[in-house]
Amino acid sequence: MAHGKVWLVGAGPGDADLLTVKALRVLEAADVIVADRLGARSVLAGLQTAGVHIGAEVLDVGKLPGSHAVPQDGINEMLVSLGREGKNVVRLKGGDPYVFGRGSEELDACREAGIDVEVVPGITSAISVPAIAGIPVTHRGLATAFTVVTGHDQIAEIGGGRDHTVVLLMGVGTLAHSALILARGERGSDCPVAVIEDAYGPGERITVGTLGTIAAQAAERGIRSPAVVVIGDVVRVSPHAPDELAVSSLAISNELSARLIAEHSPKGTLSD
Amino acid sequence: MAHGKVWLVGAGPGDADLLTVKALRVLEAADVIVADRLGARSVLAGLQTAGVHIGAEVLDVGKLPGSHAVPQDGINEMLVSLGREGKNVVRLKGGDPYVFGRGSEELDACREAGIDVEVVPGITSAISVPAIAGIPVTHRGLATAFTVVTGHDQIAEIGGGRDHTVVLLMGVGTLAHSALILARGERGSDCPVAVIEDAYGPGERITVGTLGTIAAQAAERGIRSPAVVVIGDVVRVSPHAPDELAVSSLAISNELSARLIAEHSPKGTLSD
Repeated sequence: MAHGKVWLVGAGPGDADLLTVKALRVLEAADVIVADRLGARSVLAGLQTAGVHIGAEVLDVGKLPGSHAVPQDGINEMLVSLGREGKNVVRLKGGDPYVFGRGSEELDACREAGIDVEVVPGITSAISVPAIAGIPVTHRGLATAFTVVTGHDQIAEIGGGRDHTVVLLMGVGTLAHSALILARGERGSDCPVAVIEDAYGPGERITVGTLGTIAAQAAERGIRSPAVVVIGDVVRVSPHAPDELAVSSLAISNELSARLIAEHSPKGTLSD
Repeated sequence: MAHGKVWLVGAGPGDADLLTVKALRVLEAADVIVADRLGARSVLAGLQTAGVHIGAEVLDVGKLPGSHAVPQDGINEMLVSLGREGKNVVRLKGGDPYVFGRGSEELDACREAGIDVEVVPGITSAISVPAIAGIPVTHRGLATAFTVVTGHDQIAEIGGGRDHTVVLLMGVGTLAHSALILARGERGSDCPVAVIEDAYGPGERITVGTLGTIAAQAAERGIRSPAVVVIGDVVRVSPHAPDELAVSSLAISNELSARLIAEHSPKGTLSD
């Protein structure tokens, strides 16, 4: 083979069963796998447990939140260099390559060097981790929009109220600050919050509170990365929500029907 | 088997290769598949082409944007009834079940009826459809947050500027209105926009413009559903962006470095 190819592959949230069919196929055919620590390594371990044969050499570039074992430029150079050697390279990244994964930079580096490169989307943690806690990022009558952001950026400029779900990735270190800023806005300090630690992993743990209580809960329980934070009324449908926050689907549906009837009635009819 | 089970399965954006390993396994084991039209049907056709044997009976509930062949209550009742018959049921939904899929309502209906039910996340169109056009929803130096919303809701309350990506699902019918509202805000009328029609399908087509031009382009080109609309500076890295919008990864990186150096220099040093 004269030229190699690089696949930028989303590993999903850490469960090998949530790899895509295409991701599994390119992993099985790879000569080299360049793996992140978060998500990617547990997926490779899961494949081994399931008896899937991965013959590739695995290079660990050990990306952890806030630190890189190999800096991004080094990863880009590694992919280009392996591609030039004619290798089939899988760059295995936690979640989806385009959600805070710097996949776009790796794609550009390969493209600029004339290396054949392709992105294989993965299941993003932003949606699949809340799902583990029974929390849908959208729910008719509770939320019709969601914003995904890291704990470090742009928290103050997120619009909307409790019916606009906010998902914080890499948000544990800045949780107290983020909660304070969001509580000052339309959401208010009694807006529900869930933190899901180590989803799909052995340390999976779910903590539910409000914007006003979550920082103290996080300190008390020793909440640690990796974790996903979900903020908004959708948290109320989780089976993990305490009674004072919980809401049944039937109650939402009834409330929504009443609201729709009121909005579509001729003006004044209902209050007359 | 005394009791059945219902799996609420994300079919992804319409490419059978982007099913998860778990989704494929439950489809192969299913007695009945209750399928949406969008996404789900093309995935089943793709599996057939690939020679994967799906023995299940397929019930088409034909959900199209803005209309339902079978109303949601009817789908809920169908899932409960099939589960009660002891069937293994896959509810195959386009994208991810929790992103505007009403998956949470189906889950609740099954749970309230005492039917065993499980969600299998899928690749959401909100991220994987922009990817087809070479557009990452986040990109260091261009966007560090993204919001997903339908064309019908909450457009006015989305915060941020061009560095906060907006993804509109089911947004073709209301595109002119959405573009107008977003152009009035911080993004401005020259903010880049891409529309991706029928992604992963035979009618795949990509249109790139700005908030000020996209409505006219959509009318001229006869843009139709299904389509995903992406708004923000990330559109500029797409190979489909015209020269006047395009930006190279190297230019972004250089600009970002200059900004970071300026921000971290002692005050006054650079301007003195």
